[in-house]
Amino acid sequence: MTEPFDTVDVIRTKRDGAVLSPEQIDWVVDAYTRGVVADEQMSALAMAIFLNGMSREEIARWTAAMIASGERMSFATLSRPTADKHSTGGVGDKITLPLAPLVAVFDVAVPQLSGRGLGHTGGTLDKLEAIPGWRAALSNEEMFAQLEDVGAVICAAGAGLAPADKKLYALRDITATVEAIPLIASSIMSKKIAEGTGSLVLDVKVGSGAFMKDLDRARELATTMVRLGTDAGVRTTALLTDMSTPLGRTAGNALEVRESVEVLAGGGPADVVDLTVALAQEMLAAAGKPDADPRAALADGRAMDVWRRMISAQGGDPDAPLPQAKHTEQVLAPSDGVLARLDAYDVGVAAWRLGAGRARKEDTVQAGAGVEMHAKPGDRVRAGEPLLTLHTDTPERFERAREALAGAIDIADTAPDLSDSVVLGRIEA
Amino acid sequence: MTEPFDTVDVIRTKRDGAVLSPEQIDWVVDAYTRGVVADEQMSALAMAIFLNGMSREEIARWTAAMIASGERMSFATLSRPTADKHSTGGVGDKITLPLAPLVAVFDVAVPQLSGRGLGHTGGTLDKLEAIPGWRAALSNEEMFAQLEDVGAVICAAGAGLAPADKKLYALRDITATVEAIPLIASSIMSKKIAEGTGSLVLDVKVGSGAFMKDLDRARELATTMVRLGTDAGVRTTALLTDMSTPLGRTAGNALEVRESVEVLAGGGPADVVDLTVALAQEMLAAAGKPDADPRAALADGRAMDVWRRMISAQGGDPDAPLPQAKHTEQVLAPSDGVLARLDAYDVGVAAWRLGAGRARKEDTVQAGAGVEMHAKPGDRVRAGEPLLTLHTDTPERFERAREALAGAIDIADTAPDLSDSVVLGRIEA
Repeated sequence: MTEPFDTVDVIRTKRDGAVLSPEQIDWVVDAYTRGVVADEQMSALAMAIFLNGMSREEIARWTAAMIASGERMSFATLSRPTADKHSTGGVGDKITLPLAPLVAVFDVAVPQLSGRGLGHTGGTLDKLEAIPGWRAALSNEEMFAQLEDVGAVICAAGAGLAPADKKLYALRDITATVEAIPLIASSIMSKKIAEGTGSLVLDVKVGSGAFMKDLDRARELATTMVRLGTDAGVRTTALLTDMSTPLGRTAGNALEVRESVEVLAGGGPADVVDLTVALAQEMLAAAGKPDADPRAALADGRAMDVWRRMISAQGGDPDAPLPQAKHTEQVLAPSDGVLARLDAYDVGVAAWRLGAGRARKEDTVQAGAGVEMHAKPGDRVRAGEPLLTLHTDTPERFERAREALAGAIDIADTAPDLSDSVVLGRIEA
Repeated sequence: MTEPFDTVDVIRTKRDGAVLSPEQIDWVVDAYTRGVVADEQMSALAMAIFLNGMSREEIARWTAAMIASGERMSFATLSRPTADKHSTGGVGDKITLPLAPLVAVFDVAVPQLSGRGLGHTGGTLDKLEAIPGWRAALSNEEMFAQLEDVGAVICAAGAGLAPADKKLYALRDITATVEAIPLIASSIMSKKIAEGTGSLVLDVKVGSGAFMKDLDRARELATTMVRLGTDAGVRTTALLTDMSTPLGRTAGNALEVRESVEVLAGGGPADVVDLTVALAQEMLAAAGKPDADPRAALADGRAMDVWRRMISAQGGDPDAPLPQAKHTEQVLAPSDGVLARLDAYDVGVAAWRLGAGRARKEDTVQAGAGVEMHAKPGDRVRAGEPLLTLHTDTPERFERAREALAGAIDIADTAPDLSDSVVLGRIEA
């Protein structure tokens, strides 16, 4: 087959700061999926995109080309409206676990096609796999049946959705081209649009533990994604939320399941509860239920009922004890004062090094490993009191986790100036 | 073996516009040679270098790391001084052929370790292989013996010099990262410094047929290379020379050998003679022979004598008829006037498509293929008179060669404003 474009010409176009034509974009994404464009060529193009950017039209076309690389699903046959949520990833971000059953309480179908963690942020599937018996892989038929029956499903995304993105994501990960807004936005939105949800709420994280370190960049990413969703007919909004410190008091797989269950039982850390409720309200409004009261459904046990049915439907035992790490060590407060900073990124790296995450796709994770936080920024602490408990099955990992935490903690004389809400902003079309 | 750096961190450093440390550079070049840094990672780094540049110190260290990836040679044991020449590549650039024997006339050893052509510029070895019997591959012992005996040798560079460059060059070629000054300069100079010449003259081409399209960029490249050579103890100067139109009246392998022999016989096109003499004077001055008169050695047959011995020493028959292409076609002047422009790049592409060059390393070249030019910019032409003769063994190639030439020729009413010399500038340390 004769190719209509030359790969080097396409790379050169973006390298020189020009706009790729729609035909060039369609071709290069398709040719990459077919293996005609080599990995080393796509990585040069990704770096050129990273450094020279893409126009709104280029991003939309790139996203459409990624969608066209695979199959499309539709939830239109379901008897209820669908609402989906996507987080750009953060440390201690277990929100999907309480959120999916909570929204399903109100007769909204919540399909959460999720991934595994790589690097310092955990993966939703890794967390749920800490529950004895629970399985991530469902057939499409099983997923649709569970959406009709239970209302909520969290499972592995099939390989058929946007295969170009799957291939490109693996490449970006090893070539330092992950954090480019055009590439992040098209990666996330191609999968979500291909999946066929009716509405989508984006949780765009800002701060040290997130891809986006500052609010302006996060706002740009959120705006780009909201436009892409809206233009594709998906009701899309975004919340900008704080990721300067971990969400809640745990980072690690079983540790986060335990905390999620606390939230579903009506308790749990305020920031996790607040963000769960804020995202639920967005999803319910987008699904046509603006008057629903998710906080009440956490308090009265309805969300917990759906959780139990959701876990059971996928083979999990909601009553089974969760795995615990074999070894723990404590990190003590070095002085008296107020905890001014507990850095999200550093805690994420520590949890990862303790065994909660993986460095390579082939690695396995430890269900019990992670970091438990006994204080949050703003809390008073006393010298010698435990600030963190580190959990692992492999105690030789403690040292490198402590190294990661060396600059993670600031203790001040007076209370820091903290945002009073985990939600920092909202973007709509 | 534990690696001291993470590849993604190194890429990210350059991506974000920072300076790579000497240790990062040493490691990444070595790790790439060992295969620890993958091709897709190096191509992302190359694009980041292309777009964000490198400091003088980074380029020097990168060059040193490429040299350290392989063996080093030395010509210090020879009884005569050595002088080397490198051209950045142009269309019709056969200068090495008359130049090497011409300089050797004056008891200077001229080792020309050369390559094959890829793309629109021909390779010196491809040209000489048009001579029946001539062979490019010599052992180091044969090369040294020929330098002592004849004084001039043009042969294939061994694989042992700067293997990192060899690997990186192949990658740059397919990822649109060839034309970056730090990468060009380090690629050329790592091989020349590793080779161990005492002095080096660089012929840096400027214009449509060259990597560098404008004089400022060519000057920057030349300055960078002269500094690298000087800092490494090689007496290095550079000439900036015109490549807006092909050198001489031929582009193609046997065609260029024939023209080179004309120059060695005291004739040949003025631009080829002038550039050969100018480069010879630079090389002779650098080798401690500033008073030598190369023009006289062309006129009186001394250079031709060395040429014949040089060709014979490598198995070639200097008296054998050169191969001729099986088919020719003419390109006629479309109107009366003065030839204002004959584009170097377009002629190069035409010669390549006729079979003189290769698209992939594995391709073979046609000895007889190429373009013969009957007029040069500034010459008067008449409508219907032949401007070019196209040569090929495979007549189905004529059409694509004519396509390449569609915009190559401008004919004007009055004489164009042309530089009166092929040499546009000179750079020294």
